[in-house]
Amino acid sequence: MIALFSEKIRFFDTTLRDGEQTPGVSLTPAEKLEIATALNRIGIDVIEAGSAAASEGEREAIRLIADAGLHAECCCYVRALAHDIDLAADCGVDSVHMVIPVSDLHIAKKLGKTREKVWEMALEAVVYAKERGLVVEFSGEDASRADQAFLGSLFAAAVEHGADRLCFCDTVGLLTPERVAGVLPPLCGAPLSIHCHDDLGFALANTFAALKHGATCAHVTVNGLGERAGNTPLEEVVMACEVLYGTPTGIETTQLYHLSSLVSRLTRVELPTNKAIVGAMAFTHESGIHAHGVLRDSSTYEPIKPEIVGRKRRIILGKHSGSASVLAALNEMGYEPDPAQLREIVGRIKELGDEGKRITDADVMAIAETVLSLATEPVLDLRQFTVVSGSNAIPTASVTLQVYGNEVTGASTGTGPVDAAIKALQNSVAAVADIRLEDYHVDAITGGTEAMVDVLVKLRRDGDVITSRGARTDIITASVEAVINGMNRLLRSR
Amino acid sequence: MIALFSEKIRFFDTTLRDGEQTPGVSLTPAEKLEIATALNRIGIDVIEAGSAAASEGEREAIRLIADAGLHAECCCYVRALAHDIDLAADCGVDSVHMVIPVSDLHIAKKLGKTREKVWEMALEAVVYAKERGLVVEFSGEDASRADQAFLGSLFAAAVEHGADRLCFCDTVGLLTPERVAGVLPPLCGAPLSIHCHDDLGFALANTFAALKHGATCAHVTVNGLGERAGNTPLEEVVMACEVLYGTPTGIETTQLYHLSSLVSRLTRVELPTNKAIVGAMAFTHESGIHAHGVLRDSSTYEPIKPEIVGRKRRIILGKHSGSASVLAALNEMGYEPDPAQLREIVGRIKELGDEGKRITDADVMAIAETVLSLATEPVLDLRQFTVVSGSNAIPTASVTLQVYGNEVTGASTGTGPVDAAIKALQNSVAAVADIRLEDYHVDAITGGTEAMVDVLVKLRRDGDVITSRGARTDIITASVEAVINGMNRLLRSR
Repeated sequence: MIALFSEKIRFFDTTLRDGEQTPGVSLTPAEKLEIATALNRIGIDVIEAGSAAASEGEREAIRLIADAGLHAECCCYVRALAHDIDLAADCGVDSVHMVIPVSDLHIAKKLGKTREKVWEMALEAVVYAKERGLVVEFSGEDASRADQAFLGSLFAAAVEHGADRLCFCDTVGLLTPERVAGVLPPLCGAPLSIHCHDDLGFALANTFAALKHGATCAHVTVNGLGERAGNTPLEEVVMACEVLYGTPTGIETTQLYHLSSLVSRLTRVELPTNKAIVGAMAFTHESGIHAHGVLRDSSTYEPIKPEIVGRKRRIILGKHSGSASVLAALNEMGYEPDPAQLREIVGRIKELGDEGKRITDADVMAIAETVLSLATEPVLDLRQFTVVSGSNAIPTASVTLQVYGNEVTGASTGTGPVDAAIKALQNSVAAVADIRLEDYHVDAITGGTEAMVDVLVKLRRDGDVITSRGARTDIITASVEAVINGMNRLLRSR
Repeated sequence: MIALFSEKIRFFDTTLRDGEQTPGVSLTPAEKLEIATALNRIGIDVIEAGSAAASEGEREAIRLIADAGLHAECCCYVRALAHDIDLAADCGVDSVHMVIPVSDLHIAKKLGKTREKVWEMALEAVVYAKERGLVVEFSGEDASRADQAFLGSLFAAAVEHGADRLCFCDTVGLLTPERVAGVLPPLCGAPLSIHCHDDLGFALANTFAALKHGATCAHVTVNGLGERAGNTPLEEVVMACEVLYGTPTGIETTQLYHLSSLVSRLTRVELPTNKAIVGAMAFTHESGIHAHGVLRDSSTYEPIKPEIVGRKRRIILGKHSGSASVLAALNEMGYEPDPAQLREIVGRIKELGDEGKRITDADVMAIAETVLSLATEPVLDLRQFTVVSGSNAIPTASVTLQVYGNEVTGASTGTGPVDAAIKALQNSVAAVADIRLEDYHVDAITGGTEAMVDVLVKLRRDGDVITSRGARTDIITASVEAVINGMNRLLRSR
């Protein structure tokens, strides 16, 4: 593979500006600083920290990032207004990303101005920003729908007036790789950035087409956050450069997943299950053919090793599982079925899958023990649980369990009724085992209060870890069921 | 815009096969039929219904779809084995998608065979499938890593032996548009399909590159479901054809969002927030500049009108909101602030956003009423609530409220404690207003049982609808808070 791009590609990250404009996303100054620090650590060149004109909190965030002593250039979004430039400069940033509407549609409909007026404002703003000592990245908004001759002249004039870099914004995601090849080459009078949106799914491909045709810097966001369908995802550009285009990026790729998880947690935008590189399923295998191949040689069904982006491979079981992955899972759980028993277990797992169920460790163990005719008496049996909660009551739960034949009762308070109930369960078995709740997950509940609630828990007892599930219309009962299922397995496996 | 493709593009949908192989996804036969019917309705050419060899439930699903009298061709995934072909034929399908590993890596590592053996099995299987009366789409698995001369000869031989169509599978998502242009043209001895995976984000771009270089059929899945990072998304190929490449697809685009939602609901794979075309935010605007533009002319910040794909535009408020969208929202709520008041309200909304909060209708009303010095006494005041739940207790809640100065107490049972508490609140105010719960949403809860739970509700009183929020570590208290906040607003607005 020959490196496609002659120069090092620069990364301009706009997670904290365009990414934060994702409707419903709001970050506090401290959260923005945390993300900026992580971006700096993996080797981003420019961090667009926000728009100083947006709010006081935004200015505080930008100041924090500008003062944090990062290697990365700290940039602020501005319109072609002295007011915006002053606010940015007063935050102590290195540079401004100056965005000028350049299509007639945006000039007339959004600004209610003329090309001449925009031309004048833009060049005045460039001159003023340079006077204030700022690096200027001069950006044509909606450039893909602009008269390209007008855009070319404006870009040339901006450079003449002091703009340090240029940027072509495909604001509404209307470019195609073919169109990029047509419009970009004449514009390269200064280092050129490309800023793409994914409205029709072409953000990544358009970014690469631009890098081939003269652009040297990619505008990106972590997880592809951004207005509407979002911007070009950082992690995809980095890994495509490294893996497909043979172009080292200098980015610390093993930190990509950590960064992605951090941004997802702080923005409260969940990572899409099947998103490239960072989605939960990107390195997870269920189908028999695929899992079998991966177990023999991971390159059969993985384009890159998960460790390269800071992740791990997962094999999960379901109706598409084949014998190889079921056997691998059973062996790991300590079961040694003979070939006939294995066939039977695989069959029953597929049956459960045919019913539309997700299959947890506890399900697999229950099936294996039935087929292998192992002890089927539960170690632990729930006799009752009671939860009281309210505005004037500390959430309190009691549970009564039969544990190895002895009746024990435990009680606990908690931050909420679910927390109280799970703590009461842990207290009840504390005499025989220390069982920790490692993870508690509830799928988003949508619709009404009578919807099925699916609770998945991960429990640990010393070195043993297990996942189990409970599904009820009542979140407390579902949580208790999930924990009891898992505890039963953990207590029996000794 | 000139149409890029000479022929009509065919759509081969594999949501029910490769899409269902998304780890953790399992569909029942009835659910598969529901999706197949929806795919048929929007005009898909070929529906790959599943893999008959996978399980008995899978065969039942395939038979149901084959017998449903759809216009679409019903296809079954098979390996090059008489056993698989028999199972498929016995389900009554029109065609088989016969997948043959063609890279040396897959041949040696996965199958443990040689090129000669694969060649022999493949051609025998083609002949056998034709004897059984099936249309054969002959597919090279991992074709992008295969010796292209071997692949070309195998494809030619398959056509000679009766294969009706060919398919190039980029099984691990390693193609780039540049490589597609290099490898595809020599293979077109029969109608060619392209099957892409999105491991590095290029599935859509590679699919279009293939359509330009000889392929006439795109393998797609709804929402881009599929192994790992998924397959090429149907909705993106359709809309990019229509909008960017001037190529009518014949697909009923106004049904795309309905189809997408159906698949998301049945597979329980949530739609990514910022996914192109179908994500929640794809037609939602918050930022001041964007919302302002869209309010004047939607094309400023929308590449297509949402109605084209069966959706609606949403403007939401947050820290990036400008005066125009805040004023539009306030007017809709019946407030008429003067310019100074509007500035103050916008400022306070931004402050709330700076704290990292999502802004609901109730928040906006609370701010507006404070600024406009309207009645600030709450109509409704919570005095207490109590919830009891347990294995031997029907979930029961009581609440005491001050409503317009009178103390009222209500009680209710429910399917769970949240349901009981909300019904008790509704009962308490029933004498003064009929307030319905239109929507109840809880973000996925991840981490532990002490995590913050964010509850969003939508309440209706006759024609008035309102969203409000509660955020606590306790799901019941958060739910009660959200409903009380919303009720307060609905009762006051008369």
